[in-house]
Amino acid sequence: MEDGTQQEQASPAVQKRIQASFDRQGLMAHLGARITHIGPGCVHIVLPARPEVTQQHGYFHAGATSAIADTAGGYAGYTLFPEDTDVLTVEYKINLLAPAVGDHLEAIGTVLKSGRTLTVCRLEVFGLQDGGQRKLVANGQQTLIRVNQPTQ
Amino acid sequence: MEDGTQQEQASPAVQKRIQASFDRQGLMAHLGARITHIGPGCVHIVLPARPEVTQQHGYFHAGATSAIADTAGGYAGYTLFPEDTDVLTVEYKINLLAPAVGDHLEAIGTVLKSGRTLTVCRLEVFGLQDGGQRKLVANGQQTLIRVNQPTQ
Amino acid sequence: MEDGTQQEQASPAVQKRIQASFDRQGLMAHLGARITHIGPGCVHIVLPARPEVTQQHGYFHAGATSAIADTAGGYAGYTLFPEDTDVLTVEYKINLLAPAVGDHLEAIGTVLKSGRTLTVCRLEVFGLQDGGQRKLVANGQQTLIRVNQPTQ
Amino acid sequence: MEDGTQQEQASPAVQKRIQASFDRQGLMAHLGARITHIGPGCVHIVLPARPEVTQQHGYFHAGATSAIADTAGGYAGYTLFPEDTDVLTVEYKINLLAPAVGDHLEAIGTVLKSGRTLTVCRLEVFGLQDGGQRKLVANGQQTLIRVNQPTQ
Repeated sequence: MEDGTQQEQASPAVQKRIQASFDRQGLMAHLGARITHIGPGCVHIVLPARPEVTQQHGYFHAGATSAIADTAGGYAGYTLFPEDTDVLTVEYKINLLAPAVGDHLEAIGTVLKSGRTLTVCRLEVFGLQDGGQRKLVANGQQTLIRVNQPTQ
Repeated sequence: MEDGTQQEQASPAVQKRIQASFDRQGLMAHLGARITHIGPGCVHIVLPARPEVTQQHGYFHAGATSAIADTAGGYAGYTLFPEDTDVLTVEYKINLLAPAVGDHLEAIGTVLKSGRTLTVCRLEVFGLQDGGQRKLVANGQQTLIRVNQPTQ
Repeated sequence: MEDGTQQEQASPAVQKRIQASFDRQGLMAHLGARITHIGPGCVHIVLPARPEVTQQHGYFHAGATSAIADTAGGYAGYTLFPEDTDVLTVEYKINLLAPAVGDHLEAIGTVLKSGRTLTVCRLEVFGLQDGGQRKLVANGQQTLIRVNQPTQ
Repeated sequence: MEDGTQQEQASPAVQKRIQASFDRQGLMAHLGARITHIGPGCVHIVLPARPEVTQQHGYFHAGATSAIADTAGGYAGYTLFPEDTDVLTVEYKINLLAPAVGDHLEAIGTVLKSGRTLTVCRLEVFGLQDGGQRKLVANGQQTLIRVNQPTQ
């Protein structure tokens, strides 16, 4: 999971659709997050450390950790949806396993079950040091719904 | 719940401790969130609408909704903790019930059960129009842990 | 919430439909659970204490507590569904707040949001002593889906 | 994961401690569940199909599915705890991914993170046909707490 370039990529059309949707998310740009991998049923999002995403002790805020986890899961599900549909998060649950420290966070959303209406994803967030250390800092589970008319 | 000024307030010492911790959260300032009520076991946080907190359709991003819900719950628990302790989120689960629209969001964290080690909170987020309409857009449940040495 | 007879009842047709479905649940009979209230968007289920529903310390097993909570929530949602539909649990989350002790447990499922496809319920379980003491022992949140063809 | 006998086993002392605790759970015997594997940080529980564990359509009841998932996770955590401690479930969340059908269910609890106070487990439940088909029917996540004095 360390290197998106060695993993299976989604089709160019799917990658384009997801990147375009991501680029319309004001919050992701405001936090400084970017997509680093779009595979079939799997999306990675990276968030660099900076003071704007911290909680009171200078770690990544659980809200920032969760925001990229939720977004990675949502787009992981969306890679498997037909065109002219959209995705909404129904709910998610996340455990914050360790202080979220590191030079950046990497959130990985992975589809566990893709159904006609509902999709369930695993959410993982790792804290990474530039030197290479990698630690699981959050783990969650998410339910998505497919909306058959685009909501925009 | 509409008007924090008519509700029971926490002691000045508790209010000061919580406001000071909140002010150290880089993410809350970056999102534009502010605390509007600190009562015993209950904290309100408001987030005004602006492009920096949106998802792809211009609604509030689930990550922003969750960030203020998690923070409101964490500080609700913290109002009941002794001095020289700190609070960490163990986990939370949130259902996104409706598109999060409005001129601002109000997150309300309320303690359901406060134990020696663990505290459980209810999380609610309302979308509010300036004219007064108020709608529940998210509902969740959170587990907190009390840390007996301050982590900072 | 103490006395189902003073609360609003669902229509006789809805009550009959729900009781009939409950009576087909082998697990509920095997545990010794029974429905004590069927209101619009709210169902109560009671489970008497006996050795067959315990965990290793003689308290009610979290599995028994959860089973009646999930069932109460599912039927609470079902009271609001049209005829010729069915209900399935998508997911739930439950916090076990205190040892589940008492002469019986009472699970209360209450609809928070009823949508066309998905319904979200609050789940509460109380431990009750015959003398009248009543304590919240578990609290949860559940997502249901409406199935438009009956699954049986 | 298919064959417990080929997997790493916990020490005989740990296996004995967990089996003894399981045998005191009235609910597990009443449902007909049994432990089939006790490894370090991983426990399997099997539940055969019979009318006493069904919901209204004859599938395994979500309450039965959850009960064995919660128990497998709890004991998975407990394999890593020191003697003279006990384990309690703080909370869990479970998605019911597919109708729980099969000749028996197999629940697998696996420790994701074991801390001094809190442990987080992954919960998986598979439906198995005697002929060999195996399908993931539920997936969840659980938080446990270590209690330093035995509660019994």
